Amino acid sequence: MTAHVVIIGGGFGGLAAARRIARGPVRVTLVDRQNHHLFQPLLYQVATAGLSPADIASPIRSLVAGHPNVETRMAEVAGVDLQKKQVRLRDGGSLGYDALIIAAGVRHAYFGHDEWEAAAPGLKTIDDALEIRRRVLTAFEEAETEPDAATREALLSFVVVGAGPTGVELAGAIAELARFTVAKEFRRFDPCKARVVLVEAGPRMLSAFDERLSDSARRALEKLGVEVRLGTRVTSVRADGVTLGDAFLPARTVLWAAGVQGPPLARALGVELDRAGRVKVQSDLTIPGHPEAYVIGDLASFEVEGGGTLPGLAPVALQQGRHAADNVLTALAGKPRAPFRYLDKGIMATVGRAAGIAQTGRLRFSGFLGWLAWLFIHILYLVGFRNRLLVMIQWAWAWFTFGRGARLITGVTPPLQPAPAPTTREREKVA
Amino acid sequence: MTAHVVIIGGGFGGLAAARRIARGPVRVTLVDRQNHHLFQPLLYQVATAGLSPADIASPIRSLVAGHPNVETRMAEVAGVDLQKKQVRLRDGGSLGYDALIIAAGVRHAYFGHDEWEAAAPGLKTIDDALEIRRRVLTAFEEAETEPDAATREALLSFVVVGAGPTGVELAGAIAELARFTVAKEFRRFDPCKARVVLVEAGPRMLSAFDERLSDSARRALEKLGVEVRLGTRVTSVRADGVTLGDAFLPARTVLWAAGVQGPPLARALGVELDRAGRVKVQSDLTIPGHPEAYVIGDLASFEVEGGGTLPGLAPVALQQGRHAADNVLTALAGKPRAPFRYLDKGIMATVGRAAGIAQTGRLRFSGFLGWLAWLFIHILYLVGFRNRLLVMIQWAWAWFTFGRGARLITGVTPPLQPAPAPTTREREKVA
Repeated sequence: MTAHVVIIGGGFGGLAAARRIARGPVRVTLVDRQNHHLFQPLLYQVATAGLSPADIASPIRSLVAGHPNVETRMAEVAGVDLQKKQVRLRDGGSLGYDALIIAAGVRHAYFGHDEWEAAAPGLKTIDDALEIRRRVLTAFEEAETEPDAATREALLSFVVVGAGPTGVELAGAIAELARFTVAKEFRRFDPCKARVVLVEAGPRMLSAFDERLSDSARRALEKLGVEVRLGTRVTSVRADGVTLGDAFLPARTVLWAAGVQGPPLARALGVELDRAGRVKVQSDLTIPGHPEAYVIGDLASFEVEGGGTLPGLAPVALQQGRHAADNVLTALAGKPRAPFRYLDKGIMATVGRAAGIAQTGRLRFSGFLGWLAWLFIHILYLVGFRNRLLVMIQWAWAWFTFGRGARLITGVTPPLQPAPAPTTREREKVA
Repeated sequence: MTAHVVIIGGGFGGLAAARRIARGPVRVTLVDRQNHHLFQPLLYQVATAGLSPADIASPIRSLVAGHPNVETRMAEVAGVDLQKKQVRLRDGGSLGYDALIIAAGVRHAYFGHDEWEAAAPGLKTIDDALEIRRRVLTAFEEAETEPDAATREALLSFVVVGAGPTGVELAGAIAELARFTVAKEFRRFDPCKARVVLVEAGPRMLSAFDERLSDSARRALEKLGVEVRLGTRVTSVRADGVTLGDAFLPARTVLWAAGVQGPPLARALGVELDRAGRVKVQSDLTIPGHPEAYVIGDLASFEVEGGGTLPGLAPVALQQGRHAADNVLTALAGKPRAPFRYLDKGIMATVGRAAGIAQTGRLRFSGFLGWLAWLFIHILYLVGFRNRLLVMIQWAWAWFTFGRGARLITGVTPPLQPAPAPTTREREKVA
């Protein structure tokens, strides 16, 4: 009988694995709780009204439609029984497997303060992005009618916690939105006076980059008007503001971009996890003691020579997805699995409309050149010709007009009333 | 002191009025519960995953940013006191006015069966469209894992109630989605077997059109596989299906496009309404006895010579908006108000990817020519150069590939579980 491979998660890793493994003599079931693959590096643009959700997402089904041996199942995974080789689904179904690839991603981590989530949402899914967009745009609307000066100031204060790429990109985009896009549209306050504060506990921004590049990004961000607070710890988050060290900063919009952890699915596996709740994998990407079960992408804790683990980046997930697929096929053919080696193509981040940083090998780019590199790579990797074209046009339009195309406040929450505390829903991509 | 004009509603009528009246020596406040103007004629494309919300919506603020004497207020109107000349807002504020233009639109009417709304949502707002998109796409996902044949058939049965332009366009688009877009993407059923039933109580579809054109549209719809049931009355709607006359038709997705009524705001005015709850206006568009209060667009019941009232169409709203603005300015200058005369430019509707009907004066178009006319006019009237360009590209892409660009299942409701009964929220555009 044909071997059955189950893949959990249709992100970069899971999708790459599915497409690669489909070439072999196997049946594949790709499970995701969403119906779409998401180009997560551009999610901050949806959150800040630059792009529409559909511009950076494609139905998983259509991305694997060309492989008749791949079945897509939109379902939430309730758990995995590694002994019985079975995936249990929340809808009551279950899937037996001969090989399993877990690419379920990670969720936000609030360092033991899960109660902060309601006031400081993170950015992992389209729904997260639309919620952030709703909060940011609604804050400006409320400021227009708020008679009290102190409250208005809190409405126009935006705090982003965590100065990794997502935090930096969010802070830069919100500053641009205030200073350029809506600058002339309000009558009772000056949007340019909106305050954007980027808070980072560590000693510098974008710590994965060269120090010179981090500095260049910080200067670019400050030029946009963002206050960068390094070495500053958030000690409490409430609906009306955050406490930084001992000082309370009134702010109605707080966004969380400070750290991740593995989803409950990982904890339920009963295998060894690292401190962030990620699954420790062997050099061939399998779970120790389970040669038919692989973990890849953000959820995999893969140790590199010299210490440390691979970062949660799209290229790591893509390469691991393809490698796990190859290993599954090799093992089914009775041959030995190969160890995974990450081919580091570099890292990059962007700060607003014309500055970026990129490092690859010994090369370092910053400023406009770094931004061009960022633009080129992101357009190149966007899934699907149509999406690429649409995103390019919208960026070109936004660049020349300072406009933003997706400034819609949508969602069932009635607008212009105090946002109710969102239920703490599980935010992991799959599980 | 400068006269203050309040406009309720930022749809076609309200926006046209605001832009026109801003030329005069007045202060204008434009109130809408949404932050965006919506190109409603294309809303069915958002509901059927062809376009993104942002493609057919623009922030009201940015559309009037060039007029310093226009203030935009995102707020829900709680009521209007015609005697005191005051608009009360749900957020506690109130706006006094010297002249008032009510362009609040209409909501769905369930003919005394408001309890049907949960099972049969209508299509008036972006949130409505996203809810319909979620239901339609989720039905296919659920069908893929449903073991029971009868339940699967109900999941793959889509009933559209009401064969006006919206109903016809929805039915055609769902049929195309099933037969072309997702045709090759499911493994356990054939999407081409999905059933789309269009139900109409009257004797023919699109009754505002010439009989020959209605017939041509019906044939085009049937060619797409839609079952058209004319002279058929819906006697009950439940979550698992509809009763047509005496026969129960199991269907998990029912959409409502059968009639409208004025919002509660209109009933609360204490003035004369027509049977559909629309405000009866005089020939100068004012409310009888209130020469400073105008009602325009879908909410106005405007009698035409020879009997009957003007239909709820975008051109009517646009012309009335401009006319009311002119009358406000004339009256402020102490001159007499002019009666409104509708310049009928014709009507049109589309059926799927290459058929449409249009009639203007004595001209009649159907088939491909009718569709081209429809395409041209809709692109032309889409607000904003950028939206026009984006929509054109997406349509061109969809036309050549049979694809649909916005097939995302989003929303806080957890997917793949029985849809909870939506709270009966008020659906009128403003109020």
